[in-house]
Parts: sequence; structure tokens; C-alpha cells
Amino acid sequence: MKELVFVGLGLHDEKGISLKGIEETKTADQVFMELYTNLMLGFSTKNFAEITGRQVCILSRHDLEEENGNLVLDAADNGKAVFLVPGDPFIATTHVALRIEAEKRGIRTRIVHGSSVISAIMGLSGLHNYKFGKTVTIPFAENFSETPYRVIAQNMTLGLHTLCLLDIAADQERFLCINEALSMLLEVEKKNKLGIATLESLAIGIARAGSDSPLLRAGSIKQVMACDFGGPPQSLILPGELHFMEAEALIAFAKAPVALRSAVR
Amino acid sequence: MKELVFVGLGLHDEKGISLKGIEETKTADQVFMELYTNLMLGFSTKNFAEITGRQVCILSRHDLEEENGNLVLDAADNGKAVFLVPGDPFIATTHVALRIEAEKRGIRTRIVHGSSVISAIMGLSGLHNYKFGKTVTIPFAENFSETPYRVIAQNMTLGLHTLCLLDIAADQERFLCINEALSMLLEVEKKNKLGIATLESLAIGIARAGSDSPLLRAGSIKQVMACDFGGPPQSLILPGELHFMEAEALIAFAKAPVALRSAVR
Repeated sequence: MKELVFVGLGLHDEKGISLKGIEETKTADQVFMELYTNLMLGFSTKNFAEITGRQVCILSRHDLEEENGNLVLDAADNGKAVFLVPGDPFIATTHVALRIEAEKRGIRTRIVHGSSVISAIMGLSGLHNYKFGKTVTIPFAENFSETPYRVIAQNMTLGLHTLCLLDIAADQERFLCINEALSMLLEVEKKNKLGIATLESLAIGIARAGSDSPLLRAGSIKQVMACDFGGPPQSLILPGELHFMEAEALIAFAKAPVALRSAVR
Repeated sequence: MKELVFVGLGLHDEKGISLKGIEETKTADQVFMELYTNLMLGFSTKNFAEITGRQVCILSRHDLEEENGNLVLDAADNGKAVFLVPGDPFIATTHVALRIEAEKRGIRTRIVHGSSVISAIMGLSGLHNYKFGKTVTIPFAENFSETPYRVIAQNMTLGLHTLCLLDIAADQERFLCINEALSMLLEVEKKNKLGIATLESLAIGIARAGSDSPLLRAGSIKQVMACDFGGPPQSLILPGELHFMEAEALIAFAKAPVALRSAVR
């Protein structure tokens, strides 16, 4: 049977995958994996091979984007191929083209979902997921853009929170940290003066979502910038209007100042 | 050690949980579970007990919301309690109050994430996750509200997609289906005439996201309403502006009419 199963590895390490994902891996004719679309800092390919008893072919961005994933497609043309992807497989949009090409070739495709950094960050913060607007990625300084600021402003006008993912270099050797991202927003604020990213604006820094040691800190941008968040991955939330339960959650989970209570309705 | 670990069960059945979640369950002093915040149609508590070797205490909405989860908190006061929750534990906001109460009592809380229906639906559709605006839930007819229509309109103005979750009765005996939800949107359209939910508007129906047999169908509301989606859970996407790759994905994965190609930029 011609089949290509996209399996989510979930978050952080080799234990983020679901039982279903393990089962699919064990019964595949060939197993592929990529680890470049998301940081999986605790992931050990050796441990993963021990858990599944399978040899895994690790694919580079070049294999998938320049070579159009032909290795994977050829394997799926001749049996069941499993392709392991960090997080939930299609939250990064990178692999949609591969899935389209497979379907065009008459290969049946399926998805075994994994936990995604997006729902993990929302869940850790205690903020209500249906109160988030459009998500944005803040790029490195050399790719500076005012877009993130504008998206935050637009969401705030609607009372909505903004989840800001922070850029990670293709080689994963470098990552944008919370402090740098906030500095960039403060810079844009100086020019645009919409009052959404001043030193007094509320922000939430989240480091290492999905790991055993996530760190959250909510407070004014000034307070968050004074916090040492340690290693990657890091992300940010710029909240819109807070429900009183959301304020309580930020106080309990993210050390927000208790004065936040009086600022909500 | 006083500890409360929220563990996501992921989607559909007992194999949606991560290896990490299984490990936490096995090492808990007491294990609790609720199955009412999300449909887990393939879930067997018997199979789950066989996998983990643990007896699980199933909690009702009454236990958690009227009794404030005291069973769980008392267990966590005396050791390590694991609380198993469908999907990603805090995507339903139901348990945030329990986590806040635990932290107030000096109980350490942790989260082991699971795959969420929200990222699953976005991933299945092939639409870009960062192009979704605010998510909305469409209620049963007896709780009729114009809010979903207004949220869709607001998102569309910004070019964004809207994920519409469809209501499920507390006893899980009844669920709002795609057809009924679209009928309600058409009704509101008649009155408001914003042109966002006419018989010709593009919609995507998604049934059983996260199961082995998800069904997707993209087309005009008229075409989607003519499709038999079968059992629950069901959900809807009302897309905003489509990128050409999103249109290709809807054609390949959701049988959208190929004419969609000419409608995108």
C-alpha cells in the first residue's frame, strides 16, 4: 500500500510522541525524520531508536525543500513511509507542499498529531485560547519588520492577546531572546506611539514551553526585561483585555504583580 | 512531595497520550481523569488501565466544578497526583481554577502537553496557522447567538480564517453538526447581509479530527451542506484570504473545486 504518515514528535524530547505515533513508526517500511522546523533540545535520536527499534533517516532542509522530499515520496510509492516532524506536523507550514505532492501521486496520506508549541504556550499562561488573535513571529534584528507591532496593535484594538513566536536561525545555533524582542517592540513604539509596547505595558515571557522546566514571568515590559529566562526556545505574549480569571492565573503561574487584579474587569 | 501533574490525553483514543504522559501516570500516587471537556470517542478506560497498569478515578463535571476538585487537591496534598484531561489540558479553560487553587495551597503543578483539536483541525486543513484569527464556538439553536457570525466577519475584514468549534451537550449525547451550524450562519446572514455566509461562500467542514478517519470537504456552503459528514466531533472553518498554496491544499485534501485556484492571488 502506498502510504505516507506524518507523525508529530510533540515537544522537547523523544517522549513527546504519542503511543499511536510509536505504533505507526514500528510498522513502517521506512522511517524519516526532520528536526529543523522546531527546537527539540532534549531529543536524542539514539534514545528514539531504542524506544522504537527502528533506524531513522534524518532529513535536512535541503532534502525536503530543494529536493522536494523525493526520498520520502519514493519510499511512500513503495510501501508505508512514516515522516516524523517536531510538534504537530502541519503547524509549521513547511510540509504542506510534500503532502500535496503525495496526494497528487496517488499516495494516501494520514496525520498522527502531536502536541504543538502554540497550544502549549497558551495553556501554560492560563490565558483563554479563544481570546488570542492572529499569531506573529518576531524576526532577528537584521530582518527587522514593523509587522509584529502592527499585528499586536490590531489584536489589542479587538481586546485580543497576541502570541509572539521568536525567530530561530536555520542552523538552530542562534535564537531571538525575549529581551531582544521586547527591545525591538519598544523601538517601534517610539516611532508609532500607539501605547501598546511601552515600558509599563503588560507582557508575558515564556521560556522552554513543553520542557520539564518552563519559566514564565508576567509583568510590565520593564520587569520582564529584567528577568533572566535562560535557554531557548523563548516566546512572548502581549495580552489584550484580561478576564479576572486570566489575571489570577498570571499571578499564580507567572509571578505577575498582584496589582494586576485591580486592572481587570 | 506535593505535586499535581496535568497530563493531556491527546485526541480520539487511549493512544493519543505521549510516552511522557504514560511515564507520569505510572509513577503517580493517585490518578484522576475526566472525559467530559472533549469527545474521546475511541477511548477505552479498560485499555488505558492495561497500558498503564493503574486504576483511574473518573471525575464528573460535578466533582470538578461544584466540589472544586477537592478530591484531586487532597490527593496532591499527600503525594503526586496525576490528572488526565482530553486534548491539551488547558485548551479547555475549565481546569485553570483548579491549577490556581493548587498553586495557592503550595502544591507544585506541572503540565505534560497533548495534541489539541485546535492545531489538529488547522493542520488537517492545510491552511496556515498564523492566518487564523479569533476562534469561536457555535452554540445549539436554543442558545442562538449572533456572536459567531460577527467574529467571522471581523476576521474576514482582516483577511483571516475562523475556526468554528461546534457545541457538544454536557452529557455528550448530542452534538451540533456542520449542517445545522451553517444553517444558523445563513440565517444571520439574511439579517445582516455582510456577504460572509451566503450559499456561495467558501467553507470547510471537518469531521472526526484526530481519529483514523477524518473527513474534510471544502466548497461553497451549499456544497458543504450537501455532504454527509457522519459522526462527531464536527467543526468548521470559514476561510479569509487564501494563499495559492492554501487553495492547492484544499483541492488536494478537502476536494475543493479546482476553480478555487483562479480565486486566489
